[in-house]
Formats: sequence, structure tokens, C-alpha cells
Amino acid sequence: MDITTVWEELAWERGGKIIYIILDGVGGLPHPEKGGTELQIAHTPNLDQIAQQSSCGLLEIVGPGITPGSGPGHLSLFGYDPLSWDVGRGILSALGIEFDLQPGDIAARVNFATLDEQGNVSDRRAGRIETDLNRRLCKKINEKVTLDFEGEYFFETVSEHRAVFVLRGKELDGQLEDTDPQATGIPPKDPKPSSEESEATAELVRSFINQVNQVLADENPANSILMRGFDRYVPFPSLNDRFELNGVCIADYPMYRGVSRLVGMEVLPRPGGMKQRFQALESCYGDDYNFYFLHVKHSDSRGEDEDFEAKVKVIEEVDQLMPTVTQLNPDVLVVSADHSTPAIMGRHSWHPVPVMIQAKTARIDDVATFDEYACLRGALGTRPGVHLIGLALAHAQRLRKFGA
Amino acid sequence: MDITTVWEELAWERGGKIIYIILDGVGGLPHPEKGGTELQIAHTPNLDQIAQQSSCGLLEIVGPGITPGSGPGHLSLFGYDPLSWDVGRGILSALGIEFDLQPGDIAARVNFATLDEQGNVSDRRAGRIETDLNRRLCKKINEKVTLDFEGEYFFETVSEHRAVFVLRGKELDGQLEDTDPQATGIPPKDPKPSSEESEATAELVRSFINQVNQVLADENPANSILMRGFDRYVPFPSLNDRFELNGVCIADYPMYRGVSRLVGMEVLPRPGGMKQRFQALESCYGDDYNFYFLHVKHSDSRGEDEDFEAKVKVIEEVDQLMPTVTQLNPDVLVVSADHSTPAIMGRHSWHPVPVMIQAKTARIDDVATFDEYACLRGALGTRPGVHLIGLALAHAQRLRKFGA
Repeated sequence: MDITTVWEELAWERGGKIIYIILDGVGGLPHPEKGGTELQIAHTPNLDQIAQQSSCGLLEIVGPGITPGSGPGHLSLFGYDPLSWDVGRGILSALGIEFDLQPGDIAARVNFATLDEQGNVSDRRAGRIETDLNRRLCKKINEKVTLDFEGEYFFETVSEHRAVFVLRGKELDGQLEDTDPQATGIPPKDPKPSSEESEATAELVRSFINQVNQVLADENPANSILMRGFDRYVPFPSLNDRFELNGVCIADYPMYRGVSRLVGMEVLPRPGGMKQRFQALESCYGDDYNFYFLHVKHSDSRGEDEDFEAKVKVIEEVDQLMPTVTQLNPDVLVVSADHSTPAIMGRHSWHPVPVMIQAKTARIDDVATFDEYACLRGALGTRPGVHLIGLALAHAQRLRKFGA
Repeated sequence: MDITTVWEELAWERGGKIIYIILDGVGGLPHPEKGGTELQIAHTPNLDQIAQQSSCGLLEIVGPGITPGSGPGHLSLFGYDPLSWDVGRGILSALGIEFDLQPGDIAARVNFATLDEQGNVSDRRAGRIETDLNRRLCKKINEKVTLDFEGEYFFETVSEHRAVFVLRGKELDGQLEDTDPQATGIPPKDPKPSSEESEATAELVRSFINQVNQVLADENPANSILMRGFDRYVPFPSLNDRFELNGVCIADYPMYRGVSRLVGMEVLPRPGGMKQRFQALESCYGDDYNFYFLHVKHSDSRGEDEDFEAKVKVIEEVDQLMPTVTQLNPDVLVVSADHSTPAIMGRHSWHPVPVMIQAKTARIDDVATFDEYACLRGALGTRPGVHLIGLALAHAQRLRKFGA
């Protein structure tokens, strides 16, 4: 029984505003020398004060032992169980660069890469080329590569070594394997179709890659491409369709802009900096929206860098800006994360993330600080990530009663 | 996977007695001035003493963020997941007044109401007419209204402005919309059928309402009726069928008598007062029954009145009578609620309710008081409401082992 469908039936157009402040990958593990997690060590008087006036708890974003990618992590927070709602990386990338995806389009994530003389991958990211070079190469590819079918392709820069590939036409399907071998010293893989419906598409992709290899033959280091996350775009029912929420997203990175667009949120221009995103929230707060998603990326980035102190600083920077949010006096304020990225691990992990919900109807518990250990004792307990939107809707008085 | 079906397979006819003391809507939120919830503020030495000898916890009755009506709330406590077991308000009302519903009957809740000269609803409850007037009007309607079909109708007083309407015949179906517009200043709605099977029934209902309007044309204030909660009666498997429980209900209000009857409990004559219901429990406690459901309504009523102090007094009144229950020395004593009705909200809410289970096999935790905050730390944790009956059955030694 998918509990989120019950909220769909109960949601109405009345009620208050919800703000989500999502610190990507903020969950952590205790540092052996520093004596605590990133959140425990960070000086966070504002977040702690909010915790003291909130219902707190932990969210298990996808499920026990399951490490979420940022896509599934955010879908969970928005009320789309990632185990039911699947979307390929290519779709998210395309949506993230404001590419106007149409239903039926096939999309894939692309990395410019380096192949050695034997045709083996020597650098899966072509040394992280500059965005300007990426643009030049895309232009060259768009000019020279042609596909023989009733349709068109698109090949566009995302940033650095990343691009996105879209096929639009009839009788296409996205069940193709990645060409990225996820390792060096071996050749790229075949975009093998895993269904009959995808065979024609596989042929087009092979032709595309072959031509790109010729076009880039003289280039260095980006002399090839690797493709992954093939998927066919089937639009999701929006947050408005499902929960009567008019959402807006304030984020920099294509992934989060993409997920937000996927669920029907409006996406504001890239804020560009930490202070700017909080200012953008303040500016857009009003009658147009009732659901506000503010995303902070660098808590995850510094965690992936294994830089504990830098991640602590990101958290502290956010904390200093929290009064901007509390001054808006939203009906429901939520602070959480899409997954943990403990600095001592240097990658996403499955550990539950802290969450707090501040609202007039919150059962305020005695959690005094916003961190993984204190929140364990909160009134919300440890819950699946998909519960969050339901609780937020309830606190915003946006759900009718169930039954007589 | 519906866990309650597993208990069906494991339940046997042996074992002890279970008492449920259900304080309707007792869950609350802290009062800003009084410094606690209704349960925290109330002086409850007896309930607290039971808590000290119990496993305690919280029940999330239907699901996160979901505010239960009392019908679904009680179904959950009895082991019928309200997300799977649906029953219209009309059915519950009819069962509640001891109407002898037959499988296939169509039932609806009725309010006597006032329409103005334009035919708009001016009072959805006709000023809450007296029960005697209700009876007179029902008699008049029964004498004068005829329906042209192979079957019969019933129209009976519940109390005050409330009545119940039942149709019995062939090829009837209950998928009709409410006629109650849930607002004043607009006309009643059409009992629109949402399926082909319900069209014939809709015609009969329209004819009924038209005739009633004529019959009541000279009446004031009750010159019309509003109908809601249409449903076709499909009997539920009883508590006996499912769990080998012979249940008895001690309650005043039709809703709870109705739900109890729906799940096959016997319903004792209305106790009428607080002390009387505890005396009735004492009187009926014996070999006839192994499951006792004692319901207290006024904790919910005072919550809905936003009267914090009065709700506290109801709780204290119950507390003073608890020795009657503990003296019976039941094998399993459960105290809980069907939902929260915080006085500071004045309506049902989604907040989890405290529960305690006293039994020889209870893992006694260190919860010292019966309230929402203390019970958060109890051995039962926070659980779905449907878990309660399974735990009670287990503690009553009424479930065999699962597997070898």
C-alpha cells in the first residue's frame, strides 16, 4: 500500500506554505578525532533553536542499507517512492539544463572521455575539460554527425565534461545499457538493448558514437564519449496534480533542477551562491507558491571530498543564513537531507538523515540540537523518507480528514 | 502484506480476556500556557500506575499525516486496516441504531435541514431539532412517501437532527455522491451516481428527496433533508471469524455501536453515564466474552469544543474509575485512543496516540506516566494502529506459534 496515494486523495487546495531546506548529503558519521559528526561539531545556534521548537526525527530515505543517489533521494523527500518511481540519469540531466524534453524522448547522460590507442578508456572524464571546450566539441558534433531516421537528435553541453544526448522520433525506446564501463583500461561497452523495442534505438546510438569518435579523432584529451542512464521520458504526475502544491525550486546544479522540473516545480534562475539562494527564497516567497525547495549542494561535495572541516563550514554558513528563512514565518519549515555523505567515507551512504518539522501543530520534543544523534530521540522517530511530504502537508492543514 | 491476516491464521479459541479502554480523541498537543498536553496536565494516578506496569508506546492509527475519522480509527484498533476496509457513514449510522441491516442494503446518513425560499441550504442541521420532532417528521415521511420499485425503504430517527435512510431491493448500488453541500447559501447537491450500477438507486433517492421536500413543505425549521455517506452493506468478517474473539461493546454513541456491530460484537444497552459504563463492564465480565470494548466519547467532544480544562476533567474522571477495571484483573488491559483531538486544534488530528498494554508477558518499560511524550520512550515504539490487536492477542496467549 503506497501511503502517498492516500495523501493524493486527501489533499485540498487550502492551507499554508511549506519550506524545505535540504542540505545535500549532510548526514555523517563521527570523526575519530573530532569527537562527533559534521552536524554535531558545527556551530549551529540557529538550526538548534529551530530544533528546540520542532518535531525531530530521522529519515531512512529509500530503505535500510540502501544508499540513495541524489535523484532518488529527492524523489523520496517529495513523496515519490524511488522504489516505485524510477527515472534515468539522462532524463534528469536533460531536464536540469532546461532542455525541453517531450514525452517519448530518449535521453542519456554523456561524459567526454579519453580513449588510448588501443581503444581502452584511459580517463572517464577526459581530465574534467573546461565548459568552453565542451561547447566547442558539441558544436562540432552537431555540425558533422547525422543519423538516418525519421527524427532528430540533440547533443548539448551541461558543464565541464558533462553533456546530454536526446533522441526524438517514433518507435524509440530507452532500455539500453550504459556504454560507460565504470573503469579504466577497458573499452567502452556496447549500448546493448535489453528489449526488442530498444533495438532500433541501440543502432542509432551505435552510429552516433562511431561518428563522434571520428569527429573527435584529432582531439585531446576529449576524443570520445561515454553514455549512461538511458531512459524514455514519461512525465510524472506533478506535485500539483498529486498534492495541490505549487512548488518552486532554488538550486544551482542540473540534477536538482531536473528533479524539481520532473515533479512540476518552477525552477528559478541559478542563485549562484549561498547567500543568494536565501535571498531568492525571500524574494519569491508569496502568493505564487505554497511549496519552496531550497537546495544546498556543497555539504555533499565536501563530504565526497572527504573534507570534514570544509563540510562543517558549509553547515555553519547555512546556519548563519537561517534567520532569513525563519523571518518568513512559514506555516511549515522542514530542514533535512536527501542522504548522508559522511566525510570519513567520501561518498553517499545509507545512514538515516536528521529531519525537523517546525509548525504550530508540531509535537515539540526535547531535541536540543540538530544532528543525527539528538534527532534519534525526537517525536517523529525514524521513518521512511516518503513520509515527510505527508507530515508536512498535514501540518500545513493541507489534508482533509480520512473517513467519517 | 496485510499482517492482520497472519493473526487470523494463528488465532485459536484458547487464551485469556482482553479489555480495551478507548478514550476517544484523547491524544493532544501542549497547551501554550498550561505547559503540557491534556494527558500530561490531568491528574491520573491510576493510569500512571498502570503505565508503570505496562509496555507503552504510540499508535499511528491510519498512517503518517492522516487524520482518522472515528470510524476508521476504531477499525484500526480492532485490526481492520482502514485503508483496506472501507465503510460508508450511512452503514455505520444504521448499525448504530440497531437497524437490522441486510447484505445488499443501501444506507445513508441523513440530516434534517433548513432550505430558504430560494432552495439554498440555510441550516445544515435545522437548528439541531429535538429528537421528538425528528420522530414526528419520520412518521410523517414514512406515511406519505412511496417509492416505485420492487423493494422497500426505511427512514428512522437516530437523534436530534440525525436520521438514517435504507433502501432494500434488487439491483441497487451505493456509489452516489453526498447531497450535503457541506456549506450554506447553496442548494443541496444531486445524489450523482458514480457508476452505471448506481443509476437506478440515484433515481430512487431523487424521488425520495423530492417527496420529502413536499411532505415537509409546511415544516419549520426542518423543511428538507441532506444525505451523505451512501454505501452498500457488505458484512465484514467478524472478530470471531477472524480472531476467535467474542466481543462486547459498551458505548453510547451510534458511530461506535455501529462499528462494533459491523465487526460482530454484541452491543450492550447504552450505559448513559461515565460511572455506568464501568459498572456495565464489571457486570458483563465473565464467560460470555473474551474481548471487551469500553468507549469514552467526551474526551473527543471536549477536544472539539477546544475546551482543554474540560477534556482534562474527562480524563481525570476516567482515571478515578480505572480501579474498577484493574480489579477485574484481565489477562490483557489496553488503554488507548482512536485518534488525537488536541484541544488547541478543536478537531481530530494525525498525531500518534499513546497506548499501554498491561499483561503478565508485557515487557515493562520505564514509562512512568500515561501521556504522549512519556509513551514515546516506551517498549512498543511508534506503530501502526492495526498492530494493537495482534499484540493484545499475543499477550492473551491467543495466537499459536508461527511455523515449526
